[in-house]
Amino acid sequence: MSPAVSPRQLRQLIRNRKWTSPTSGAASGYLQANLVMLPAAEAFNFLLFCVRNPKPCPILDVLEPGQVEPIIAPGADLRTDLPRYTVFENGEFNTEVEDVSDYFNDSMVSFLLGCSFSFENAMLAAGLPIRNMEEGKNVSMYITNKRCTPAGPFSAPLVVTMRPMTAAQAVRAVQVTTRFHLTHGAPVHLGDPENIGISNLGEPDFGDPVTIKPGEIPVFWACGVTSQLAATSTPLSRVITHAPGHMFVSDLKDEDLTIL
Amino acid sequence: MSPAVSPRQLRQLIRNRKWTSPTSGAASGYLQANLVMLPAAEAFNFLLFCVRNPKPCPILDVLEPGQVEPIIAPGADLRTDLPRYTVFENGEFNTEVEDVSDYFNDSMVSFLLGCSFSFENAMLAAGLPIRNMEEGKNVSMYITNKRCTPAGPFSAPLVVTMRPMTAAQAVRAVQVTTRFHLTHGAPVHLGDPENIGISNLGEPDFGDPVTIKPGEIPVFWACGVTSQLAATSTPLSRVITHAPGHMFVSDLKDEDLTIL
Repeated sequence: MSPAVSPRQLRQLIRNRKWTSPTSGAASGYLQANLVMLPAAEAFNFLLFCVRNPKPCPILDVLEPGQVEPIIAPGADLRTDLPRYTVFENGEFNTEVEDVSDYFNDSMVSFLLGCSFSFENAMLAAGLPIRNMEEGKNVSMYITNKRCTPAGPFSAPLVVTMRPMTAAQAVRAVQVTTRFHLTHGAPVHLGDPENIGISNLGEPDFGDPVTIKPGEIPVFWACGVTSQLAATSTPLSRVITHAPGHMFVSDLKDEDLTIL
Repeated sequence: MSPAVSPRQLRQLIRNRKWTSPTSGAASGYLQANLVMLPAAEAFNFLLFCVRNPKPCPILDVLEPGQVEPIIAPGADLRTDLPRYTVFENGEFNTEVEDVSDYFNDSMVSFLLGCSFSFENAMLAAGLPIRNMEEGKNVSMYITNKRCTPAGPFSAPLVVTMRPMTAAQAVRAVQVTTRFHLTHGAPVHLGDPENIGISNLGEPDFGDPVTIKPGEIPVFWACGVTSQLAATSTPLSRVITHAPGHMFVSDLKDEDLTIL
């Protein structure tokens, strides 16, 4: 598939089950999003959790109960236009499916949250290394000892992604990613992993370990997986999320959401 | 009163009715906020309105139903720590009071939203003119022909403040205020007022008219009054807001919320 496919074309392919794989690198330059769907009765508290924890949970769009067409992608349907979904019931994993038309209902609210794919394009453009891409792996993710600010029944530890680079590159990475405040923004930490409760970089909690070269330091960004841990931190009747790596592709360009 | 009074001291004076005047210039350097309190049943929709319209309604803090102590000001009580409040019932003005202990109840939610006082300090530090301060007036505010994105029953036109300056100063003002994205951020317009539906700068909808000198252009920023128009756009049983100019003074410094 050419990366020149438009977001609308890509969503159509996904809806027709002609695209069922992860969306990394697809419709390059367009904003991809984490999806969380949950009961309207807890929507205020979950929105509050996101507002109180904007670095891991940057809000791109929130739909009213029962609605499936996002403002940031007219014509799209969130029940069918992601390649793969995870369904949780009573706080536990239930199933993975390619269409949630039979699971979503009128009393559920959908949240679209920013994803680090946006700033990765900008980092590549600035000549910065993204080791997991170089090594054909999923990014390394770790559960830290930092707690997010809770809201109602929702709580979670801060989850981070890690990308290794030299100190000079880390300075540049701070500059480049600061502009992307709605897609996790500037790093939350750099250097000593134990400072945020990570004892072994070689054993990430999610994703794959990557090579850290001599002279490199780990640089950590807030990660959208935090929002999934929060959404499933209390036993709601049903929560639907995107399956890892299988994101929603919007019509917004990465640049549309930069602060500068 | 010395501007060196701390936010905590100022709130104590207000609570004891020893300070009942507007808060402009008080506890200089500390973040002041717009207050909106409304029934929990509509809190999700109002939060959604703010999320969808971040320039006029930048969210600083949202409290859970019945709570009165903000995260951004430990020890404060939102029912007593603003010098003056406006109470609306069924969408209509009801009364102005100095204490809302008899009006706030456990089924209401409080929102604190950013205020342009923060970036005014930064503009002054950069040597930029704030004409209404020079002339001892309230800032000029106008209802524009731009509509905010609605949410549930809430809708409002965008309200703007206007500050006149030279074009070169306007460029500098864009730079200075961009950093303050949680206190209205960069201008929404500059130049021709008719472009945003303002026919006569000499007749603001709120506040006072100010002098525009030869060679100056009007520069427009999103204004927190938008949130009050939204909160009262549907006949809720009760809405409480700060009275104009009588803001909540938090413990955060203006600099704490800058993006860069």
